[in-house]
Amino acid sequence: LEITTLGIGSASPHKERHPSATLVKVANDLLLIDCGEGTQYRLLENRIKTKRLKYIFISHLHGDHYFGLVGLLSSLNMNKRTEELIIYGPVGLKKLLNLQFSLSDTKLNFKISIKVTNPDTAEELLNNDSLLIHTFPLKHRISCTGFLIAQKAAKRKVLTDLLPSDFPAAYFKMLSDGQSVNDTHTGKFYKNTDFTSDGEESKTFAYCSDTIFDTEIVKHIKNVDLLYHEATFLETEKNRAKITFHATASEAAQIAKLAQVKQLLLGHFSARYDSLDLFLEEAAAVFPNTLLAEQGKSVII
Amino acid sequence: LEITTLGIGSASPHKERHPSATLVKVANDLLLIDCGEGTQYRLLENRIKTKRLKYIFISHLHGDHYFGLVGLLSSLNMNKRTEELIIYGPVGLKKLLNLQFSLSDTKLNFKISIKVTNPDTAEELLNNDSLLIHTFPLKHRISCTGFLIAQKAAKRKVLTDLLPSDFPAAYFKMLSDGQSVNDTHTGKFYKNTDFTSDGEESKTFAYCSDTIFDTEIVKHIKNVDLLYHEATFLETEKNRAKITFHATASEAAQIAKLAQVKQLLLGHFSARYDSLDLFLEEAAAVFPNTLLAEQGKSVII
Repeated sequence: LEITTLGIGSASPHKERHPSATLVKVANDLLLIDCGEGTQYRLLENRIKTKRLKYIFISHLHGDHYFGLVGLLSSLNMNKRTEELIIYGPVGLKKLLNLQFSLSDTKLNFKISIKVTNPDTAEELLNNDSLLIHTFPLKHRISCTGFLIAQKAAKRKVLTDLLPSDFPAAYFKMLSDGQSVNDTHTGKFYKNTDFTSDGEESKTFAYCSDTIFDTEIVKHIKNVDLLYHEATFLETEKNRAKITFHATASEAAQIAKLAQVKQLLLGHFSARYDSLDLFLEEAAAVFPNTLLAEQGKSVII
Repeated sequence: LEITTLGIGSASPHKERHPSATLVKVANDLLLIDCGEGTQYRLLENRIKTKRLKYIFISHLHGDHYFGLVGLLSSLNMNKRTEELIIYGPVGLKKLLNLQFSLSDTKLNFKISIKVTNPDTAEELLNNDSLLIHTFPLKHRISCTGFLIAQKAAKRKVLTDLLPSDFPAAYFKMLSDGQSVNDTHTGKFYKNTDFTSDGEESKTFAYCSDTIFDTEIVKHIKNVDLLYHEATFLETEKNRAKITFHATASEAAQIAKLAQVKQLLLGHFSARYDSLDLFLEEAAAVFPNTLLAEQGKSVII
């Protein structure tokens, strides 16, 4: 599970910080969470193969989280994409995209499925062989959801060295799926745990942007491997954070501590701060295993 | 009249070329023509004082000409703008902006007047002390207008050295407005042409993007000081230009020649070309006084 932050800024533009956009790489698939203005140029700069982009998640409809979406979709279309794209986002997004495509007389070459997220309760969005994805409510000025992405545990690892040469290749999948094998041709029995070891563990990533300091979210993100939490302000602007439904670096760290996550990644920094050193200092005092998001840089879980 | 091109690319994104956006400086006012994705960041990079931005003109609703508009307006609002902003653009733009502001629950601190342009006929948009602005139809895949911006001739220059010391200051404006002055107190008569010389001449700028090669536009842009004309393709892609309702560098130069403009500025280059040298070569063979638009660079008329 590889997390790449493409934008670390917040709503007010900053010359060196792009608005929110985070890529998640899972096996061969790419997921994009939020898509601020200019995200398509960030994908280009970072040489991201958009053919592998399968899902887009939009947390809420403040511009710094989605103004780049229609541009990205238009460019995918111009690049002759044919693969379906699934977009999860708030109600209203579909109407908006349809209006924009209609005004520009754009006919899409690929299918877009837009699925409306529910801002009021945690919800399973996706559950397939490799991914389990949930939303959970965030408290912001408008409806907003967090995302919990779990890369499912890999299958059991088959210990091929222990298998005899007459072991039928057709039974390999049974072993990796955790089943024992009874070879009716030879009468031999292969107990699963004798011939396999544990696969890789499930990896989890939680994304919380934008939100006021809210301990209600802790139960949704317990023990995740990596928590991205917004940190728009420092404690000196704690009151401003509250009024605007944002969090401080220290508050983000408190959430990380309460949820006993393994690592905390801070982003969504206000344009009022030129240096970000104090964000790390403030958060690490509460939760030592904290990182500041860097544009174009990845964290591998 | 100062023209600054902020983006020289076309619809398909190119790593080093931004989409269309052109600033026009007239006295103390700023006008923005088209506003592709990321234009607000271009204004920031070029240290443009957006407080002076008075008018925005959108030629058509293909994304590379307007996807940055809602982001720019949102940021102006966050920066506590209070001055009215007047936007001229195609039908549909108002509905789209209203939907976006409504979805993000944005209340604007400043007034935006959105005036719908007519794509079918030339039309006067604005006529005040310093500016005279017209639209004219362009032939593109969707409704599209060109813009003709005239900075009006400065007032007559008063030859103060020739005026006697008892000339009443209150009559200065009459002279600069071109009137003669009859001083009823002294009985002296001041014939306007004896005490003034011609002011600076009117300056004109025409903006044509996007358009197929179309001699119909020539009559609207006759003799302008500077013509910006799109040149999406080279002559080698002449057929592709025709199909997509775009022009080649040579075609843009033919329009400049037919309209007897003073200078031609080319932009809107397709992402398929990495070097732009051939655009200049191709156009200059037809119309020698040609420039390639450069990002962040200005042409002063």
